[in-house]
Amino acid sequence: MENMQEITGVLFDFARTGRIGLPEAVFCQGKPLNVLIDLLRRFSSGKPPILFTRLASDVWQGLPQDARASYDHDALSSTAFAARMPKNDKGKVAIVSAGAADAPVSHEAARTLDYLGITNTIFEDCGVAGLWRLARHLEQINDHDAVIVVAGMEGALASVVGGLCPRPIFAVPTSIGYGVSSGGKAALDGMLASCAPGISCLNIDNGYGAACAAARVVNLL
Amino acid sequence: MENMQEITGVLFDFARTGRIGLPEAVFCQGKPLNVLIDLLRRFSSGKPPILFTRLASDVWQGLPQDARASYDHDALSSTAFAARMPKNDKGKVAIVSAGAADAPVSHEAARTLDYLGITNTIFEDCGVAGLWRLARHLEQINDHDAVIVVAGMEGALASVVGGLCPRPIFAVPTSIGYGVSSGGKAALDGMLASCAPGISCLNIDNGYGAACAAARVVNLL
Amino acid sequence: MENMQEITGVLFDFARTGRIGLPEAVFCQGKPLNVLIDLLRRFSSGKPPILFTRLASDVWQGLPQDARASYDHDALSSTAFAARMPKNDKGKVAIVSAGAADAPVSHEAARTLDYLGITNTIFEDCGVAGLWRLARHLEQINDHDAVIVVAGMEGALASVVGGLCPRPIFAVPTSIGYGVSSGGKAALDGMLASCAPGISCLNIDNGYGAACAAARVVNLL
Amino acid sequence: MENMQEITGVLFDFARTGRIGLPEAVFCQGKPLNVLIDLLRRFSSGKPPILFTRLASDVWQGLPQDARASYDHDALSSTAFAARMPKNDKGKVAIVSAGAADAPVSHEAARTLDYLGITNTIFEDCGVAGLWRLARHLEQINDHDAVIVVAGMEGALASVVGGLCPRPIFAVPTSIGYGVSSGGKAALDGMLASCAPGISCLNIDNGYGAACAAARVVNLL
Amino acid sequence: MENMQEITGVLFDFARTGRIGLPEAVFCQGKPLNVLIDLLRRFSSGKPPILFTRLASDVWQGLPQDARASYDHDALSSTAFAARMPKNDKGKVAIVSAGAADAPVSHEAARTLDYLGITNTIFEDCGVAGLWRLARHLEQINDHDAVIVVAGMEGALASVVGGLCPRPIFAVPTSIGYGVSSGGKAALDGMLASCAPGISCLNIDNGYGAACAAARVVNLL
Amino acid sequence: MENMQEITGVLFDFARTGRIGLPEAVFCQGKPLNVLIDLLRRFSSGKPPILFTRLASDVWQGLPQDARASYDHDALSSTAFAARMPKNDKGKVAIVSAGAADAPVSHEAARTLDYLGITNTIFEDCGVAGLWRLARHLEQINDHDAVIVVAGMEGALASVVGGLCPRPIFAVPTSIGYGVSSGGKAALDGMLASCAPGISCLNIDNGYGAACAAARVVNLL
Amino acid sequence: MENMQEITGVLFDFARTGRIGLPEAVFCQGKPLNVLIDLLRRFSSGKPPILFTRLASDVWQGLPQDARASYDHDALSSTAFAARMPKNDKGKVAIVSAGAADAPVSHEAARTLDYLGITNTIFEDCGVAGLWRLARHLEQINDHDAVIVVAGMEGALASVVGGLCPRPIFAVPTSIGYGVSSGGKAALDGMLASCAPGISCLNIDNGYGAACAAARVVNLL
Amino acid sequence: MENMQEITGVLFDFARTGRIGLPEAVFCQGKPLNVLIDLLRRFSSGKPPILFTRLASDVWQGLPQDARASYDHDALSSTAFAARMPKNDKGKVAIVSAGAADAPVSHEAARTLDYLGITNTIFEDCGVAGLWRLARHLEQINDHDAVIVVAGMEGALASVVGGLCPRPIFAVPTSIGYGVSSGGKAALDGMLASCAPGISCLNIDNGYGAACAAARVVNLL
Repeated sequence: MENMQEITGVLFDFARTGRIGLPEAVFCQGKPLNVLIDLLRRFSSGKPPILFTRLASDVWQGLPQDARASYDHDALSSTAFAARMPKNDKGKVAIVSAGAADAPVSHEAARTLDYLGITNTIFEDCGVAGLWRLARHLEQINDHDAVIVVAGMEGALASVVGGLCPRPIFAVPTSIGYGVSSGGKAALDGMLASCAPGISCLNIDNGYGAACAAARVVNLL
Repeated sequence: MENMQEITGVLFDFARTGRIGLPEAVFCQGKPLNVLIDLLRRFSSGKPPILFTRLASDVWQGLPQDARASYDHDALSSTAFAARMPKNDKGKVAIVSAGAADAPVSHEAARTLDYLGITNTIFEDCGVAGLWRLARHLEQINDHDAVIVVAGMEGALASVVGGLCPRPIFAVPTSIGYGVSSGGKAALDGMLASCAPGISCLNIDNGYGAACAAARVVNLL
Repeated sequence: MENMQEITGVLFDFARTGRIGLPEAVFCQGKPLNVLIDLLRRFSSGKPPILFTRLASDVWQGLPQDARASYDHDALSSTAFAARMPKNDKGKVAIVSAGAADAPVSHEAARTLDYLGITNTIFEDCGVAGLWRLARHLEQINDHDAVIVVAGMEGALASVVGGLCPRPIFAVPTSIGYGVSSGGKAALDGMLASCAPGISCLNIDNGYGAACAAARVVNLL
Repeated sequence: MENMQEITGVLFDFARTGRIGLPEAVFCQGKPLNVLIDLLRRFSSGKPPILFTRLASDVWQGLPQDARASYDHDALSSTAFAARMPKNDKGKVAIVSAGAADAPVSHEAARTLDYLGITNTIFEDCGVAGLWRLARHLEQINDHDAVIVVAGMEGALASVVGGLCPRPIFAVPTSIGYGVSSGGKAALDGMLASCAPGISCLNIDNGYGAACAAARVVNLL
Repeated sequence: MENMQEITGVLFDFARTGRIGLPEAVFCQGKPLNVLIDLLRRFSSGKPPILFTRLASDVWQGLPQDARASYDHDALSSTAFAARMPKNDKGKVAIVSAGAADAPVSHEAARTLDYLGITNTIFEDCGVAGLWRLARHLEQINDHDAVIVVAGMEGALASVVGGLCPRPIFAVPTSIGYGVSSGGKAALDGMLASCAPGISCLNIDNGYGAACAAARVVNLL
Repeated sequence: MENMQEITGVLFDFARTGRIGLPEAVFCQGKPLNVLIDLLRRFSSGKPPILFTRLASDVWQGLPQDARASYDHDALSSTAFAARMPKNDKGKVAIVSAGAADAPVSHEAARTLDYLGITNTIFEDCGVAGLWRLARHLEQINDHDAVIVVAGMEGALASVVGGLCPRPIFAVPTSIGYGVSSGGKAALDGMLASCAPGISCLNIDNGYGAACAAARVVNLL
Repeated sequence: MENMQEITGVLFDFARTGRIGLPEAVFCQGKPLNVLIDLLRRFSSGKPPILFTRLASDVWQGLPQDARASYDHDALSSTAFAARMPKNDKGKVAIVSAGAADAPVSHEAARTLDYLGITNTIFEDCGVAGLWRLARHLEQINDHDAVIVVAGMEGALASVVGGLCPRPIFAVPTSIGYGVSSGGKAALDGMLASCAPGISCLNIDNGYGAACAAARVVNLL
Repeated sequence: MENMQEITGVLFDFARTGRIGLPEAVFCQGKPLNVLIDLLRRFSSGKPPILFTRLASDVWQGLPQDARASYDHDALSSTAFAARMPKNDKGKVAIVSAGAADAPVSHEAARTLDYLGITNTIFEDCGVAGLWRLARHLEQINDHDAVIVVAGMEGALASVVGGLCPRPIFAVPTSIGYGVSSGGKAALDGMLASCAPGISCLNIDNGYGAACAAARVVNLL
C-alpha cells in the first residue's frame, strides 16, 4: 500500500499506472472548492502528473492564482494538468467528430491523450448528412491505431465509420440535441444498436473514458 | 351522412376518399374472427375497394374459403384486398430499406401503394454499414416523387438518404433489433433526431402510414 | 468540393442547395459566442443567404453591433438572416397551431419558410378543446399545398386536422406542458400514434425541420 | 368486523358497500384455478352478489360445469356474476369509445355498471379521425349523468369530448396500438395532458375502475 | 360565434360556460410579459370573470401597477382573478393533502373552486405515515360532495381515502419528492394503480384540473 | 479455497455461510435442464443443504424421478430443498402481504426462511384499501423481529406498515398489476418514495432476497 | 391524540418515537422560509429534539440569527439540530462510501445517527475500481451491527460489500454521475439487481432513510 | 462491385474482409425459413466461410438435412459455420463471465472468435459476490491481448475487472435477471457508468459484436 496516499480526504492510488497502465485523474465537477484548491496545490509540481477533468472555465477563473500557476488549463475541454506523462510512441489515435457542438467532448478525449503522451488528431465536422466530409479524411483516419467517434443527435456517424474503418472504434455519444435527442440518449442507443460490427461505446459525453479505452489499445502495441 | 354505413358494428366512412384522398382501411390485428369474416364477405365484390392490413398468414389460413375467395392476400406484408383503387398516374414512390428483416414493413408500404394505384419500387439491403449499396441506386431513387425509408437497429439510413435526396422523405423505424433497439425505439429516436433536414417520421412498423403520407404528396401533383 | 468552405472551424456545404434543395443553416444554441460572431460577420453580405436558428434574444442583444447590423432578427422565433432565398412560387404552406404558447415553434417554421422564399400563413389558437376554432379556417387551410401542425400538451390537433385535410401534413410536437407532457413526449407519442392516416412527425420543437419537410413538397410542384 | 369473512384464503369485506357504496369484486387474472373455482361455487347463490372481472373465455370454458352453472359470463368483457345489485335509478352513464378494438374495455365498464344496477349506453366508433361520428351522438351523450371515454392509440377522443360535454368525464386509455402506443402509455399520457379542463383518468384498460368512478357520481344524485 | 373574441392574439371562448359549465382560464406560465399585461388590463373589470393560473409571485411583482390593481392575487397558489363566478350552492368540495409541501397544488384547487363560486375546505397534513391524521377528519370529509386528494412522494393517500370515502375522488399527484419520486411520476403511477376502486387521476400538479373535475360533479347536483 | 467445489460447471462457495451467514442458493430459471438435473442429484443427500429457487412446477414435473426423490418441492413458491439449515432460534420474521395474488412472492420469502431454519408467519390480504385488515394483526406483527412487506399495484402497504411498526421493514414490490403497474415498477417506486422513515426495498418479486435481508437481522440477535 | 401538536400549519406527531422508535424530522427543501423560521424558533430549546434535513447552507446563512442560535448546523450534510436524542448504546453503524462526491449523502446518514444517539463510523473512498481500498477496512466494518453503503455511478460497491459482510446492509444510491448515471437511476437499479443476497435499498440520496433503517436494527438489539 | 453478390435477395459484401477485417455474418433471428435454407445451402462449401448467428436449436433441428450437412452448429451459442477463417495468430482473447446463465452470450463471443481463427479462453462464474472466483484467474486473464466481460444482473464485474486488468476491455451486458434487471438495461447502464476508466460497452447480449471489437484489436498487433 506504499503507493497510496490520502490527500484532502481523497485517497490516491499511485500504483494504478503500474496495474492498469492508466494514472489517476480527478473528476472536478461537484467537488467542493476547498478540496479542489488543496488538490491543485498538492500536485502543482507535476510529480506525479495528475489530470483534472470537468474543471469548467468559470470555476477555474475563480480559483486563487497560486493554485492555478503551474497548470495548463484548456477552456474548451475543461481539463488541466501541470505535467504530462512520458511520451508514448507505441501508436496514435484519430478522433472523428460530427459537428462543432461536439467539441467539448472530442477535445476532452484529445487532451486526455495529450496528457497520456499519446499522439492524436481531431477530424471535425464529419456528420453523415454530408458524407463527402468524412470521405475526404478516410485514408488519413485509417492510418491511426484506434479511432474515437464523437457524435450527438442520432449518432449515425459511428455506423458509417464502422463500415469503412478496420481499427478499434470507440463511440462517444454527446448530449448535444433537443427533443428526443436531448441528453444524449438517442445517440447512445443508436451507437449501441449500430449495424456495423465491433463498435463499442462509452457513456454520454465521456471523452476521458474514450481516451483511456484507446490508450489501453496503444499500450498493447 | 349518406356515405357512411354501419357494417358488423364497425362504422365505415366511404366519404373519406373525397375528403382526404385516402379510402378506408381495416386494421385486422386484434379484431375478433367473426367480425373479420363478416367484413371480408361484405367487401368481397371489391366495391368499394377496401384494404385489410395486419392480416397475418396464420389468421388468413384459418378463415373460411368463401370469405377469402375473391381476395389477393400477400403473406409477407400481411395485407389483402379484393380490388384496387383506380390507377393514379400523378407520381411514383421509392421505398428504400436497410435489410431483409425490414421486408414486412417495406412490403406493407408497397402493397398499400399498389392498392392506392400508385407506382412504387422497393430498393432493399441499403444499410449504411455498406454505403455503396445505397450509392448504386441513388440516381434511380431520386427519380421518384417521394421516398419512404424503412430501417431498424439504429435507423441511420434515414440520415444518409436525407443528405443525398431532395424529395419528401418519410422515415419508418422498424421493431427489428435486440437489446436497446428491441421494439424500434432506438430507430425511431434516431430518425427524429436526424441531422439531415426535413425528414419526417411515422410510428414504428407503420408501413401503411408511410404509404398514405406519400400518397398525400402524389395526390398534390 | 469547390462548393465547400471552412469558416471559423465550421465546414460549410454550399452545394447542398443543388443536391437536396435546402441551403445550409446554423443551429446557434450551444455554439460559443466567438464562433457565432465570426459566422454572422462572414455572412453579413447575404451572399450566400444563411439562416441562423435558435438564436435567442438575450444572446442576440449581447452581440456586437457590427455583427448584427445587416441581419433581420425575429425575437419570437429566435431566427435571423441577412438575405432570403429567391422567391419560390411553386406552392404555399399553412401552419396550424394549438395555442399561443406554441408560437416560438410555429414562427420558427414560418420564418424558415420566409427565408426559403415560400409563402406561408399561420392559423393560431386552433386547439381541439374548441373545435369551431379550427372549423372556421378549414377551407382556407385546405387551399395550401402542405400543412404544418404545431401542438403541445396531448397533440390531439394533428389527428383532427389529419381527418379533415387531404394535404401532406407535418406534425410538430412542442415542449409546452407540465407533468406528463413536460418536454413534449406526450405530444410526440400522440402524434406518432395518431389514428388519422398519413400524418408524419418531426422532433419536438423542430419548426425548422417541418419547414424543410414542407419545402421538399413545394419543390416537387 | 362481523361483515368480513375469510373464504378460500381471500378475506372478503362485505361492509364495503355500506362504507364506500361499491361492493367487493374479484380480479381473476393470475388467480390459481382452484381458488377461482372455490370462489365461484361459494357465491353461486348470488347472495351477496359478486362481480368477477378479467375472467377470460378460455379460462371460463375450462371450469367445471357446477362452478359456472348459475353465472352469466360475458366473453367480450371477460366478466361474470350470478346476481346484480338492486336497480340504482339515480342516474345513467354514457360510454363513448373510439373504435371496435376498444370493445373489451368499454364492455367491462358497461357490464360493471349492469352489475351495479346502473343504466348505461355504449356509443362506439367515435374516433376523432372522423368527427361527425361523435357529432351525431353528442346531444344523446350529454343527456347522461357521467361519461366514460374509452380510447387507445393517441387518446385524442377524451380532449374532444371534454370540450363538448359538461358532465363528469372519466377517461380510460386502452392498450390498443403498436409502436409508441403499444401498451397504452401514449393514450394515457395524452389523456392526462388533455387541454380540455376537468377530465380525470383511470389506469390503462381499467373499464371496471371507470364504472366505479361513475357509480360514485351516480350515488351522489 | 358571437361569444368569441380575439384579444391580444389569444382567441377567447366566452360560450364555454354555457357549453361545458366551466369558464375560460389563462395559463400564464411561459406567456410573454406583454401578452400577460394586455390580458390582465383587458379583464380588469371582472366582466367576464377570468381566472389566471400559474402566475408566479415574482412575475406578478414585476407587472405594472395598473395591470394588477383590480386583481386578487394569491402567492401560494399563483392564481389571480378580478371577480368570481356567481355563488354555486349546489355542492361543496373537500381537498385532502398529504403534507405542507403540497400546498401550492391544493391551494390552486381551492382558489379555482373559490373563483367558480364553490364552497371548499382544505384538510392538510393527512399523510399515510400517520393514519390518525386522516382518521380525525374522515367524517367531516365524507360530508362533502366530491373529494380532491393531493399527494406527492408515493401518493398512497389516494388509496387510503379511496377505501374510506364513498364520494367521487379526484387524485392529484404532486412533483414533490426526490430520487424516484422527483417530478411526480411515482405518485402518479401509484394513484393510477391504486387498489381502491373508482379513483380517477389528474396530471401531475394539476390542481386547476381537479377543481374543474369536481365542479363538473357539483354542477350535476 | 478448500470450501469451493466446481459442480456441473457451476462453482459453489460453501464457505459463504461462514463469511456472510447465508448459504448458497441455485436460481433455476433459465438454467438448462441437464445442469438442473445434475445439481439436484448432486445435492440430494441434503449435505450441504441447498435451496433451489424459481423452480416452476411445470419444470419440476418434467424432471426424472430420481432427481426429485429426496426433495421437498413447493409449487406456490417454486422452491425445493432436500434438507434445511439447523434451527435458528435467535428471532422470527413476519411476512405481511397485500393480496392473494402476491402469494408466490410472500411464500418464496417464507420458504427461504424455512430453509434457513428461521420461524416465520404470513399475514395475507392486508391491502390498504381495507385498513382494518392490517389493524387486526398489528400487535401480532410487531411481536416479530423483522417484517417483510409484499405488495403489488401501488405498494402503499409498505408506507402504512412503516408508520405503525418499529421493526426493520423490508419491502418487496410484486409484478402484480396491469397498465402502469404492470411489471412492478409502480410498486417499487412507491415503496422507495415512501413517506414512512427507514423502509428499505428489494428488487421486484425478490422474496428470496427479502428473506436473506431479514436473516441478516436475525443473525445479529 | 395528546402527543400531537399543530405548529405553523404542520402537524407534529410526538408519539412517533414511542410507536416506531424514530422521532419526527423536518424535510426543509421546498418549505417556505417563514414556515422554516417558525419551526426553528419553536424547537430551539431542543425539547423535544427535532432533526432538520435538506437545510442547505445558502438557505441557512440567510435565516435570522435568533432562529439559528441554538442549532448545530452541518454544511456538508445540510442538517441541523438543537439537541440530540439520548445516547443509544445498543449497537453501532458503519457507513461505507465509494468516493468523495458521495459525502453529502454519507454525512446525512452519519448526522442522522448522531442525532439519534447512535455511534457510527464513515469509511470513505472504497470504490470498487480499487478493491484494496475496501479490503483494508473490512474487518473493522464487520465489527459494526449494520452497514450503510453509499455509492453513485454504477453502485457496484453494494454487491462487493454484500459478498464480504454478514451484517444487515442498507444501500443508498447517489445522484452522482453524468450520462446514464445522471440522477442516480443506474446506481439504484444496480443495487436492486445486486447478485449478493439480502441487500436492501433506499431511494436515491436518502441518507436519512438509511440511518433510520439502521436505527430500526440497532433498536432491536 | 465485383466482390458483391446478391443471394436469395440478400446482398453480400465479400469485400468487407479487406476493408474492415471482419467477414460478413448472417443474423438468423426473424429471417424466413426459406431464406435461411437457401443461404445455408449456398455457403455449404465453406467458400467463403460465413458465420450464422442467432440460429436457435429448435430452428436448426427443423431444417432439411442437406442444408445442415456440412455445418458445425453449436446449440449453446446458437451459431453455425461450415468453415473457419484462416488461423489468426496475432493475439488471443479472454472471455470472463459472471455466471452460468450468461453462457449463451459468452459462447457466442467464443464461437465468433473461433470462426475468425482467434484463440480464446472462457473464464466462467467470476461474479463479484465472490471476488476470490475472479482473483484465482487474474494473472491468466491479463496474459491475453483483449478481454471480453459478460455479465447480467447489475453488471458490476466490468468495474472490478477494469480496475485490475490493463488490456482493452469490452463489456457485454446480458438480459439475465428479473425486475429492474429484466432485459439487461441495469447491467448496460452499470457498465456504461463504470467507475473504472476505459471500459467500453456493446449492446445487450451482443457477444458477436464483442468478438468483432476484440478482433479489431488483435488485427492491429
